[in-house]
Amino acid sequence: MMTEGKTSPRVPMSKHRVEAFSDGVFAIAITILVLNIKVPELSPGAIQHGGLWRMVIDQWPKLLSYVISFGIVGLYWVGHHLMFHYIKHTDRVFLFLNNIYLMVIAFMPYPAALLGQYGNEQAAIAIYGGTLITAGLMYTMLWRYATSHHRLVDPRLSDRLIHLVNKIILAAPLVYLLAIGLSFIQPRLSLVIYFIIPLFYIVPGPIDRLMSREAEHLEELNRT
Amino acid sequence: MMTEGKTSPRVPMSKHRVEAFSDGVFAIAITILVLNIKVPELSPGAIQHGGLWRMVIDQWPKLLSYVISFGIVGLYWVGHHLMFHYIKHTDRVFLFLNNIYLMVIAFMPYPAALLGQYGNEQAAIAIYGGTLITAGLMYTMLWRYATSHHRLVDPRLSDRLIHLVNKIILAAPLVYLLAIGLSFIQPRLSLVIYFIIPLFYIVPGPIDRLMSREAEHLEELNRT
Amino acid sequence: MMTEGKTSPRVPMSKHRVEAFSDGVFAIAITILVLNIKVPELSPGAIQHGGLWRMVIDQWPKLLSYVISFGIVGLYWVGHHLMFHYIKHTDRVFLFLNNIYLMVIAFMPYPAALLGQYGNEQAAIAIYGGTLITAGLMYTMLWRYATSHHRLVDPRLSDRLIHLVNKIILAAPLVYLLAIGLSFIQPRLSLVIYFIIPLFYIVPGPIDRLMSREAEHLEELNRT
Amino acid sequence: MMTEGKTSPRVPMSKHRVEAFSDGVFAIAITILVLNIKVPELSPGAIQHGGLWRMVIDQWPKLLSYVISFGIVGLYWVGHHLMFHYIKHTDRVFLFLNNIYLMVIAFMPYPAALLGQYGNEQAAIAIYGGTLITAGLMYTMLWRYATSHHRLVDPRLSDRLIHLVNKIILAAPLVYLLAIGLSFIQPRLSLVIYFIIPLFYIVPGPIDRLMSREAEHLEELNRT
Repeated sequence: MMTEGKTSPRVPMSKHRVEAFSDGVFAIAITILVLNIKVPELSPGAIQHGGLWRMVIDQWPKLLSYVISFGIVGLYWVGHHLMFHYIKHTDRVFLFLNNIYLMVIAFMPYPAALLGQYGNEQAAIAIYGGTLITAGLMYTMLWRYATSHHRLVDPRLSDRLIHLVNKIILAAPLVYLLAIGLSFIQPRLSLVIYFIIPLFYIVPGPIDRLMSREAEHLEELNRT
Repeated sequence: MMTEGKTSPRVPMSKHRVEAFSDGVFAIAITILVLNIKVPELSPGAIQHGGLWRMVIDQWPKLLSYVISFGIVGLYWVGHHLMFHYIKHTDRVFLFLNNIYLMVIAFMPYPAALLGQYGNEQAAIAIYGGTLITAGLMYTMLWRYATSHHRLVDPRLSDRLIHLVNKIILAAPLVYLLAIGLSFIQPRLSLVIYFIIPLFYIVPGPIDRLMSREAEHLEELNRT
Repeated sequence: MMTEGKTSPRVPMSKHRVEAFSDGVFAIAITILVLNIKVPELSPGAIQHGGLWRMVIDQWPKLLSYVISFGIVGLYWVGHHLMFHYIKHTDRVFLFLNNIYLMVIAFMPYPAALLGQYGNEQAAIAIYGGTLITAGLMYTMLWRYATSHHRLVDPRLSDRLIHLVNKIILAAPLVYLLAIGLSFIQPRLSLVIYFIIPLFYIVPGPIDRLMSREAEHLEELNRT
Repeated sequence: MMTEGKTSPRVPMSKHRVEAFSDGVFAIAITILVLNIKVPELSPGAIQHGGLWRMVIDQWPKLLSYVISFGIVGLYWVGHHLMFHYIKHTDRVFLFLNNIYLMVIAFMPYPAALLGQYGNEQAAIAIYGGTLITAGLMYTMLWRYATSHHRLVDPRLSDRLIHLVNKIILAAPLVYLLAIGLSFIQPRLSLVIYFIIPLFYIVPGPIDRLMSREAEHLEELNRT
């Protein structure tokens, strides 16, 4: 079904249409994360004694889950777009792999709610991490399917860039696996890792600069 | 009202605008499916004895409903786009048929919630299947209205492709009707069918290849 | 603030951007209407005695409210696009009038929920109708602001078309006012009117054909 | 990390893609505000005695919060687009600053719910104002990052316009800070300020006209 170098029947659908639909799913999934933070009912007595401040402050784990999840989904959105920058065509199999990827992304509000409510529980941390790992693996599959024998990408795209992106994509699931492992020792440590990962992708590292250089190289090739 | 070969008054609305709105409705309907999976409150005692794992595992019917429904709505989205690839104009009647079609798609989160909560009940299975059949029939109406006497499609589109697409579209409602029938004997069998249908459309079959060949033929016609 | 014929400071924002944002709001408002139909909890005993069928059937007022509201919001979306077809520029005042219009559209899920739950109550019918009337009046204001002295529209747009659209737009709020009045006599009659209005706009009437002819005329002017 | 005048590694992502994603988040955040207004259950007895009217009227604080929040988020959307009008490129750091900005915007439904339910409480007013201030500061950071040494904007953009926009952007957070301060004296006064701010941006003031003139000047430069 995914024989290398062979395209499945081409579907007459431009990549822009797939991008627009994916953007919609990302934007909705990321925005409904806030629905996990509910405003509870307070008795008039509780309100009078500064209960609202305390109540809101007690919701910090939900707020933290919101911030972490928004950061991570935002990161996946950036990654999805960087990938689509290199993709020139789509085919039937790619469309369905992309839909499965979106299914995992759109699922995020559930593990985010779990983490916000039971952030110290191993189950919540593992399910959250498991979802992220699944998303990462689906992302890897999308990239491998698109690039093997340059199936759906520019034929001049260097193998070096393809493999580099492969490694960068796979790095995140490995770290998330580590976070799940750490949850057996100290659940809070896992949360710290979930929080730090998105920050890593902002600071431009050496790998990042290499990718950027390669991208510029490709752009030059396009111009000439 | 739908006299063959006659267009209703043309509306000055490009098909791209209709596509963008439809994409939005599809993307939202598919993404809010996850709201059906709620995180229940657990007593501190229940949590301590591994209750969170059990609770999450007990939610597997809702998760399954999410996966099935995401797959099916995703499939309908792909189908909607393939159809719009062939459509060149829109008219007033087409716009409203499309709105009714979207009404059925946007309704999906409700039968999906029913199926997730009462997956063994005949009522849930029948309402779920009934919604899918209605969607399929609306989709057929859209295609028939657009293609009869090549009302809104390229005049060079072959009758063979038109009838082939007609058959492919109608296949799904028939299978869903079968699934409802099977629910009288064994409800779980119906669920299996709901789950399998989307997979069928990924594996390229002989019919699929024919459609793809026809599409390429049309593309050639466009180029010359 | 809305002196005829004078444009407020032009904002460097294309009409396409405003259209895209409005489309998003319309698509979301129309799709979250389904969230008003909740799946209630049933006791195992109630389920056994065919309770799920009865429960779903008892929800028909909510389903009806969904169908009516989807039809009406869909209609407003079509109208919004027809209007934007004629608009060439935007300005600051127009942007804010449009935002207020969207505020009324995005509010629709609330009166729709009221109507679904208390469909026989005068309050629900009046609030629903009141929201529709407000939407209609805001729509009128948008059109009048854009067309007075051809402020934001094509200077060649005929006054006849402008006034015709004015009348068509104002027709709906008047009928909704009638529906509210009828609710004092017989609430169900109001529901019938809410349901019938969208259907009216599908069947091409004499006014509709005139508008269509004018639109074609303008298109011709554009071509030459 | 934000060294003036230096661009972080360029990402191959057009500003239009970022705009589309941001539009999606804005449209969703603004539309789900209505979900904060719930239809409560009424006993049949309460309904009979005009209870539905009273119940709906009692929800006025939630309705007011909806109107205020829709106005403010709509304003931020207009501002976001005006900013993107001047931006020519994006880079990695800008993308992430924009994502953090969107995180604050997408958070709005929560403080809006707080304000709707506990509008007289200092906590609700302060958290609402705090969110608006954070949004304003993120917006300032976006603009400063993009314009310092004309990093991501047109090199011919005048320093005068850049600083003027800086001041206009910073004005709102300052007023919101004032609103929080006033909440210690009279909470209702804060609500009035929240309500008035969006209106200010509609009436074209002297500053506004200057900005408009500068914008026209830049457009001229683009044409020549």
